This record gives sequence, structure tokens and C-alpha cells, in this order.
Amino acid sequence: MTMPAPLTGVVPPVCTPLTPEREVDVPSLLRLVDHLVDAGVHGLFVLGSSSEAAFLTDRQRRLVVETVVARAAGRLPVLAGAIDMTTPRVLDHVAAVTGAGADAVVATAPFYTRTHPAEIARHYRLIAERSPVPVVAYDIPVAVHTKLGADLVLDLAAEGVLAGLKDSSGDQAGFREVVTGARTRGVSGFSVLTGSELLVDSALAMGADGAVPGLANVDPAGYVRLYDLCRAGERDRARTEQERLCALFGMVSVGSADGRMGAGSSALGAFKTALRLRGVIACAATAEPQVPLSEGEAERVGRFLTAAGLL
Amino acid sequence: MTMPAPLTGVVPPVCTPLTPEREVDVPSLLRLVDHLVDAGVHGLFVLGSSSEAAFLTDRQRRLVVETVVARAAGRLPVLAGAIDMTTPRVLDHVAAVTGAGADAVVATAPFYTRTHPAEIARHYRLIAERSPVPVVAYDIPVAVHTKLGADLVLDLAAEGVLAGLKDSSGDQAGFREVVTGARTRGVSGFSVLTGSELLVDSALAMGADGAVPGLANVDPAGYVRLYDLCRAGERDRARTEQERLCALFGMVSVGSADGRMGAGSSALGAFKTALRLRGVIACAATAEPQVPLSEGEAERVGRFLTAAGLL
Amino acid sequence: MTMPAPLTGVVPPVCTPLTPEREVDVPSLLRLVDHLVDAGVHGLFVLGSSSEAAFLTDRQRRLVVETVVARAAGRLPVLAGAIDMTTPRVLDHVAAVTGAGADAVVATAPFYTRTHPAEIARHYRLIAERSPVPVVAYDIPVAVHTKLGADLVLDLAAEGVLAGLKDSSGDQAGFREVVTGARTRGVSGFSVLTGSELLVDSALAMGADGAVPGLANVDPAGYVRLYDLCRAGERDRARTEQERLCALFGMVSVGSADGRMGAGSSALGAFKTALRLRGVIACAATAEPQVPLSEGEAERVGRFLTAAGLL
Amino acid sequence: MTMPAPLTGVVPPVCTPLTPEREVDVPSLLRLVDHLVDAGVHGLFVLGSSSEAAFLTDRQRRLVVETVVARAAGRLPVLAGAIDMTTPRVLDHVAAVTGAGADAVVATAPFYTRTHPAEIARHYRLIAERSPVPVVAYDIPVAVHTKLGADLVLDLAAEGVLAGLKDSSGDQAGFREVVTGARTRGVSGFSVLTGSELLVDSALAMGADGAVPGLANVDPAGYVRLYDLCRAGERDRARTEQERLCALFGMVSVGSADGRMGAGSSALGAFKTALRLRGVIACAATAEPQVPLSEGEAERVGRFLTAAGLL
Repeated sequence: MTMPAPLTGVVPPVCTPLTPEREVDVPSLLRLVDHLVDAGVHGLFVLGSSSEAAFLTDRQRRLVVETVVARAAGRLPVLAGAIDMTTPRVLDHVAAVTGAGADAVVATAPFYTRTHPAEIARHYRLIAERSPVPVVAYDIPVAVHTKLGADLVLDLAAEGVLAGLKDSSGDQAGFREVVTGARTRGVSGFSVLTGSELLVDSALAMGADGAVPGLANVDPAGYVRLYDLCRAGERDRARTEQERLCALFGMVSVGSADGRMGAGSSALGAFKTALRLRGVIACAATAEPQVPLSEGEAERVGRFLTAAGLL
Repeated sequence: MTMPAPLTGVVPPVCTPLTPEREVDVPSLLRLVDHLVDAGVHGLFVLGSSSEAAFLTDRQRRLVVETVVARAAGRLPVLAGAIDMTTPRVLDHVAAVTGAGADAVVATAPFYTRTHPAEIARHYRLIAERSPVPVVAYDIPVAVHTKLGADLVLDLAAEGVLAGLKDSSGDQAGFREVVTGARTRGVSGFSVLTGSELLVDSALAMGADGAVPGLANVDPAGYVRLYDLCRAGERDRARTEQERLCALFGMVSVGSADGRMGAGSSALGAFKTALRLRGVIACAATAEPQVPLSEGEAERVGRFLTAAGLL
Repeated sequence: MTMPAPLTGVVPPVCTPLTPEREVDVPSLLRLVDHLVDAGVHGLFVLGSSSEAAFLTDRQRRLVVETVVARAAGRLPVLAGAIDMTTPRVLDHVAAVTGAGADAVVATAPFYTRTHPAEIARHYRLIAERSPVPVVAYDIPVAVHTKLGADLVLDLAAEGVLAGLKDSSGDQAGFREVVTGARTRGVSGFSVLTGSELLVDSALAMGADGAVPGLANVDPAGYVRLYDLCRAGERDRARTEQERLCALFGMVSVGSADGRMGAGSSALGAFKTALRLRGVIACAATAEPQVPLSEGEAERVGRFLTAAGLL
Repeated sequence: MTMPAPLTGVVPPVCTPLTPEREVDVPSLLRLVDHLVDAGVHGLFVLGSSSEAAFLTDRQRRLVVETVVARAAGRLPVLAGAIDMTTPRVLDHVAAVTGAGADAVVATAPFYTRTHPAEIARHYRLIAERSPVPVVAYDIPVAVHTKLGADLVLDLAAEGVLAGLKDSSGDQAGFREVVTGARTRGVSGFSVLTGSELLVDSALAMGADGAVPGLANVDPAGYVRLYDLCRAGERDRARTEQERLCALFGMVSVGSADGRMGAGSSALGAFKTALRLRGVIACAATAEPQVPLSEGEAERVGRFLTAAGLL
């Protein structure tokens, strides 16, 4: 399908269920897609950070896109990450994911290499030139160690290079600059999406188009409800829903609180454990070399689900 | 060939010459290998940061390894980078480069994802388990934003997981801790190599086994001379040689000094321009999205070569 | 006067007008206090970052507090920064500013030294123990290079050590955690204030008590209006007002956009230039070693004022 | 006395012994001065980071300078830190420490405020203009979060603004650039001193003038011996001595290894504990809010002393 311009609503970054042997668990992935679509989400984002794209081999990445595109069956757009270090490698992924049917590609600034705004602009221009589908910029400094400046993003949007921004920077003031700038500069069809699970109501109140919350894997209905309340101007009820989701998000620290694993292992382990406990996926395994949650930590995830009314 | 244990000497991280269309320029690459081997270097490291590994597609990476391994023809060991974000993706590169004939693989800590010492240790253990050749750790915080701790490296060395360390951290005190620790803990066959062009004499004086200097592409004979002087205990002459190389290294800032490009574009552009000016490679193009040097900047590179007696 | 518990509303961090010789310009400071009080602000914060506390000598700091306390004359609370590296030095400032009449003290985590959460907790406990007035924590990682964790802040609030938080971290998700946590944990009388000029409507919508915006020096009436609209639930009009203030805030980059000065010189120079152009203070000089704005940059500040309807 | 130009040799940053009540312990400080002078050190640096200058009140700072200057009695130069956030505050300290007899002042780049090379240059020029004694730049990014560029330092040295550099940056390549640059540019009388305990032999081999090692409080004779061996060209014996001191330096992690305190508390606690165990000072207390070493940790410090032949 053609990606709406602008894309709006809740677009979960779809987790990638794995078997105990760390292969893509296709039946679980299909159930997860159904779980999200049935809850009313507005798009699917595969091969993002919450999808463990950094851990999936090229073969696994292709299987994920094919599987999700087939199940989505044109009912909602499927965006796919093309996560790699620099332009030539990203372009290979663009070819692969669009070959597999993705409706849009999502790309970060260059990483590993030391980059520069002029190089980032050139990077996105080259990707847009070669991509058969729209390009969404992915601002995620915690991963790539560069922040996309608001002016850079708005210039590329005005040029037609970028169709949207997924902002996982945590910099809400900078996010607002893009939201407001897109409006005042009259950039049409450009979608500004927040990746901050905890600030969706704020982002929408500022005029954002939607959200890409990792936690929406666990509670897609909650985020759809939150989105609808915000759109309806029901701000107090929206805040209550958002605060319920904020409390649920506390699960991401079950493994990292005492320092025995990194924040990534802990958060992805918690999301997958929650999906297993909710009966959506078969196994909570995360990719190597991540540290798995212990049984006690998995129990604590369960308590977060119970408190949020999800178990 | 089997990698010596420990590997010693000068092991240049081989630049990857490109055509104006950004394809691997095989004839230039062969000339570059000859230029290095004829100067007496002790090993070759392909697909490292100075090789623009972050920019090369998988197809290009394979071509580079095959080309260099064939030309080296067992005369000296060829180490190959397996540079990617996490274990499963690194393992695919390990299979590819060892299939193409590499004598050792070089891998960084996980990047893009937020990592943790326990995850880094598991990462290297899994790589060593699956690799048919020795594994060298590549400590390069400027790229991966994690520092490998000396204790972690020494523990993995003692376990037989790591065969060496390439230290591009710039942390000379931490480097010394590994050099001395390997000796006092009696870790045999473990090779500690500095990646700091400017500190090779210091590193060898501390007891390091060798160096992996990007600048050795430009002046391999200079680094071999420096190595030999250090080994012979000719410290004052070694310092003079090192200082000549330090002055030459000034070329890396010709493009970045005024902020119009990043430090990576500038340094790699300078090395390749120097190789072109010295008649080794045909074209100084760097991979996308790097900013190329201007003509004036290329001239300034030439002046560095002249001052160092290389033109 | 006694500080309200919790303190609510708009509490500008008061700029410190200087003479061309860099002495405190007392008549200008008195006019600035009047300008703020007449606009209806709810408190005054002296010796914060926007007050150039880092640049003022102890003698100048004392003069500022005495001057502002005298002019405020109990009509509204005066909070004073006790900005220094560690506990013993902060305690000296606490004694000085409370001796000069401050109604509350504001202190950051230790800086210059490498600190630790246990040390930060001890720091605030010792300050609270020795301070005759309430203690507000100042979370400003851009200055002190440490982030105050939400749990640490909430624990100290529950203990009665902290009377409030001024959050200039830019981490809106972490800010929300404190706002919500104070409510759910039933910490009474604790004031959560945002220092983010651009997110005041969002912060208040989350349940924050007020704001400490540097830009309120320039347009105090705008921030008071924004606060009142938020309190009245007039969210759309609040957003419009906030967006007008966001556009005005653009002035902070007039000097730093081309890299010829730091962001601090540029922002403080712009605020003071705006105050001079609005006729509130006599001279826009900032303290040494800051770079002053050029005439052209001052003109650009004027254009921001005109666009916002302030000139 | 007049500071030698250039200052050479071992210049320990003198610890500040405290009583259990955290007052300056003058008798212990006098014994510490004797301990250092008797070992043959070439200068004394008071009110640096190892002196806990960040923790001392102005009154305590003055007492320290007066005490040490009186005991040094012109036998060797006394440098004093003027550690504060910006120029006006630093100038107050310059007046205080030179009033108390310091032979040179040592100042960092501005901190707390966001700074800029142009502002740093202006900062040092103003300090030099107002200081009655020579000014030494203190490069300590771990504390001030800015690195002094080699060109900036060399330009200020050539201008006569700076009389020396104390480099605690850990960036040995940058340090070498200053050492070599001072020589090639013919900057006379400029002293380049390393603050890296673990790299003194390397620094001297590069041509540095001396060292300012915190660990020299504990083993001044060791550092003087190391300096003398280096000057005599006895490089192998120098390396052996340096490695003994490196092993001794391991004491700095006794408290921080398990994360219960910060690296500063641990290192300063270890140095002071070692001085107490060696009978030089009466009490190992560090200033608030640092976490003290436990008894078990103090015992481990003792084992480091024993292993190094100091107990």
C-alpha cells in the first residue's frame, strides 16, 4: 500500500519473537501482528531498535519483513528499518526491505564513523534518491551518538527528501521545534512521530502526528485509546491513560536496576516476557549477546502487567 | 598462513582505494599491498576503520579480503575486521572473511545497542567459539562508544578467547595496564597492539608487541624504521623518527580544521590523497556520504608529504 | 517571608545587570525586579545560571541578594542559588544568602569532582541540616554533568530534605516521573518546577507546580499569561501563547549560530540585550570571559522582540 | 621565591590532611610537606584536585597556602590552584593565594558555564594580566568537561600568557603535541608537566619537563627516583620503577570497584589512608560529601603499600 502522507496514529515498533535457538519465530510474529492490528494500531514499524534490528542477520531481517507485510496484507502500512552504519550499506537494506514489500524505509544518521551535518544531509539525499518508497528519519542519539538538528530535518522535509521523523531522542524541546516548524513552514505531508512512550499525550498536544512506542507491543489497545482520547480533546482522561502506561513502562528496569545487565537487555527482555505472559508469543528469548531475565525478574514483569490490568 | 602468537610489528590498517564511482579499485588495492609489503610491514589489517569498513557493502568487503589475501600469498598474515553491531551479524562477517582467507578476525564491542561488560564478554566468547581463526579485540570508543576495560580484556586473553588487542582508545594508561598485565599474568601468545599513530615509540617502550597505524598506509617505511629502532633500543633516533611521523600526521585536519566536514572525512581523505600523490592509488575518492577534500586541501596534504621527505 | 509549600507559578531566574565595568548595576537590577513583579510573577530566583551566578564574586552575589530581597519586600518569595562545587563551599553560600534574606536556597549536585548518588544524597542532607530555610534541588546536567535520578529526588523529598526541584535537565520523561511520583507517593508541599522555557504548557499539563524560565526576564507577562491559561484549562490558547514564546526564544542563538561564541554567551547576551532594548536595564554587558554580541546580533534580537509584539 | 622557567621535576599536588571534624590538620600538613621535601621533590602544588580544592572553603584554602609556603620557606616553589568557575571568581582566588605567598597560580578552563575556545583564551589573558605571578594552565577535562587544545595552549604560551601546562587529560597524543610544539616553536621557559601517574616515564621520554602525580604524596621518593632515572637515560630501570608505581596506583579503586562510592572518594580516600598508614598524617578523613573507606578497604590499601615495599 502507499504510505499515508502524513502518516498518523500509533505505529508500534514490532518486536521480533525468537525461538530458544534465536531463529525468528514466525508463528509468534504472526500472532503479534494480529495482536497489534486487532487493537487498532495505524501502522507497523519492523526492524527498528525494539525489533532488535541491530541483532538480526540479513536473512532474518528479510524474513521479518516478508512475514509482516504478508500478514498486514495492505490493511495498514508497514515501515521497515534500514539500520546500518553508512549510506552504501543502508542502500543495500533499502533494496532488501522494499523488495520484501515495505511501504516506507526508516534510516538513522551514519554511525560508527564520525559524522557531520553536511554528511548526514548527503546521506538522506542519496537514500531518498535511490529508495522506491518514502524515507523516514530516525533520530536516536542513544544508539548513533548524533542528534538530528531541527533545522536539518525541516530543510530535508521541505526539499521532499524526508517523509517523516521518528524522534527517539528524548529531547522534547527539539521535537517541538520540528512539530511547530513543519506547520509554520508549511511542509505538507510530513509526519512527526514521537518514540517516547512516556510523552505521547504531550507530543500530540503539541501537534505531533503520532507515536512509535515500544511499549505498544505490550499494550497496543492502551496506546490506541490514548491516541483517540488526545484526538478527541479529552485531555484529562488522556493523561490518566498515559500515566497508567507510564507505570507499566516501569518494567523496563527489572533487569538493569541492580547493574547486572544493560538497559537494552532489560527493556527488550521485559517487553518480550510481557508478550509471553500475555500469551502472544511463545518464548521471551532475546538475541545474543543480551543477558536474559531471571525467573524472579520475569515475575516482576508479571506484577507490572497485573497492576496495569493486563493479566 | 597461521597468525604468529603473538603477532608483532607494524600491521597497517589497509586503506580501500575506490574508483570515482565508489567501487573497489582492485588494481590500486594491489599496488597498495605491494607498497606496504615492500616496505617490510609485518601483517596487514583489512576492513578496519581506516579501510572504511563501515562504508563498504558486504560484496565489497568480500572482494577486499580476497584481493589482499591473494596478493599477500602467505608472505604475511592478513587480519580482517568483522565490524558490525552485535554477535549474530558479526558471526556472518566472520564466516565471510574467513571463507575469503583471513588469518584472524578483528571485532569491536557491540554498538548501536546499549551494551554492558557481561554482554561484551559473552559477545567475544561466542565469536571465539565459532571462528576458525584467532580473534583480536578492537577497542575503539570513538566509534562504538564503549571502552574495553583492561581486566575484561586480560580475563578473556587468559581464557584463550582473545589472541590480541588493537587499542585505538587513546587511553595510554589503560593500554599500559593491558601490556603490563599480560606480562605479569603470564598470558602467553597474546598480542597487544597500539592504534595510536603518535605514540608508537611510547607503546613499544612499555612493552607493546606492535602497532596498527593508519598513517602507515602513507609512510610504511617510516613505521617499519621506527619499529626497528625501538627494538634495537635506539630510543633517541626512534623519537626523532616518531616526531617526523607526528608532523606528517598533521595532514588529517586539512579538511576538518574549519568545520566544513567531519574528522573522519578529513583524515581518510588526507590518507587517500597522500597515496594518490605518492602514485600508489589512482583516485582519492572516499565512500559516501563523506565530504571530499577540495583541491586546496589536497595541495596542503602535498605540503605535509614534502615536509616529511616523501614527495 | 516563608516560602509557600509548595511554591507554584512563574519564578523567573533573575538576570544580573552589569555596568560596562562589570559591576552589579543596582538601579537596573531594581528596575528589573519591578518589571517582573509588576507582570505578576510568583517568586524570584536570584543567583541561578541565568543570573550568571557562576561569574559573580562572593561580594557581588551578596549585593544581588540584598538588593532583590529589599525590593521584593516580602511581596513574593526570593530563592537564591548557592552554586558551588561541593558541600562545604555550598554551605558558606547558604550562610551568606540566608544572611542576606533569601527565603529558600537552591543547590546543584556536586560538580568538578566526580560524584556518586550516595554522595549527592549526603550532600543534600547536610545542606538541609544546616540551612535555616527550605532547600530546592537544581537539576542541570549541562552545567554539572550529573543527572539527578527521579528516585533520589523523591526519596529526599519524602524525607523532608528537599522542598522542591528546579529541573533544567531537558529530560521531560524524567521530569514527569518526579511530578507523578510526588503525587502517587503523597509527598506534600514539594514543588516541581520546570526550567525548560519551551515546555511550560506540557509541564503544567503533567501536573507540575510551576516554571523557572530564563526567558521570563524578557517577557514575564507572557509566562504569567501562559501559566494562567494552563491553570484555567484553556489549553489551546495556552499552546498558542507557548508557541509565541518558543519563537521568541530563538533569540538565544543569535551569537552562537556561526560558532564564534559559546551557547552561554549567546543566550545571556540575547536576554540582556532584549532587556536593554525594552528599556529595563541600562547595559547588556555580560561577565568575563563571555563574548559580547555584536551590533548586528543585537539588531537581530530586536527583530525577535518585534515579531513577538514586545517592541 | 621566583618560579624557575621552565619549572622541571616532580611537583606533587599536595593532599590536604583533615581532622575528623573536617578542619585543616595543620600539624599533619606540615609533616606531609616535610615528607615530600625530604624525598627531594622539586616543587609543591597546593589547592589542586588531589588537594580537595573543590571541597575546601576559602578560609581553609588560605590556611593551606600560608602553611605550606611558610614551611617551604623558599626552598622550592609553591604553586597554588585558583580553582573556580569563571574569570571573576578565579581572580579573587589569585589575589588570595598570591597574598598568601604562592609563587605561581594554576587555573582551569571555565566550568559550570558552557564555554568556547575564544572564551578560554580571554579567560587566561585576563588572569595573566591581573596575576602578580606566572600562570599555569590546568587541563583536566574529567573535572571541567572541556579539553584545552594544543594550539590554544601553544599560542598562549608564545604570547607569554601561560608559563606552563599541567596536563591531567589522559590524552597522551595531545600532550605530545604540546611538548613537541613548544620545542619546535621555540617557546622558551614554558613548562609542560604531566598529571598522569602511570605515564611519567613516557612523558619524560617525549621531552616533558616534569610531573604532577597525585600518587607522589604516597611515594615521593619513588617519583623522584623515576625522574632521576629518566634524566640519566636509564630507561629500563625507569620502566621498572614506573611499573612498581603503576601497581601501587591500583589502590585508587579499593572503594569504587563495587560501585558503592565514586572514583574521587575512592582515590582520595586511598591516598590519605596510605599517608596515615605510613605515619605521615593523623587521620584519613576526606571532605564532605565524600564516602569514607571502610576498614576492609583501608586494609587493602595497606596491602598495596606492602607490595610496593612502603610498609
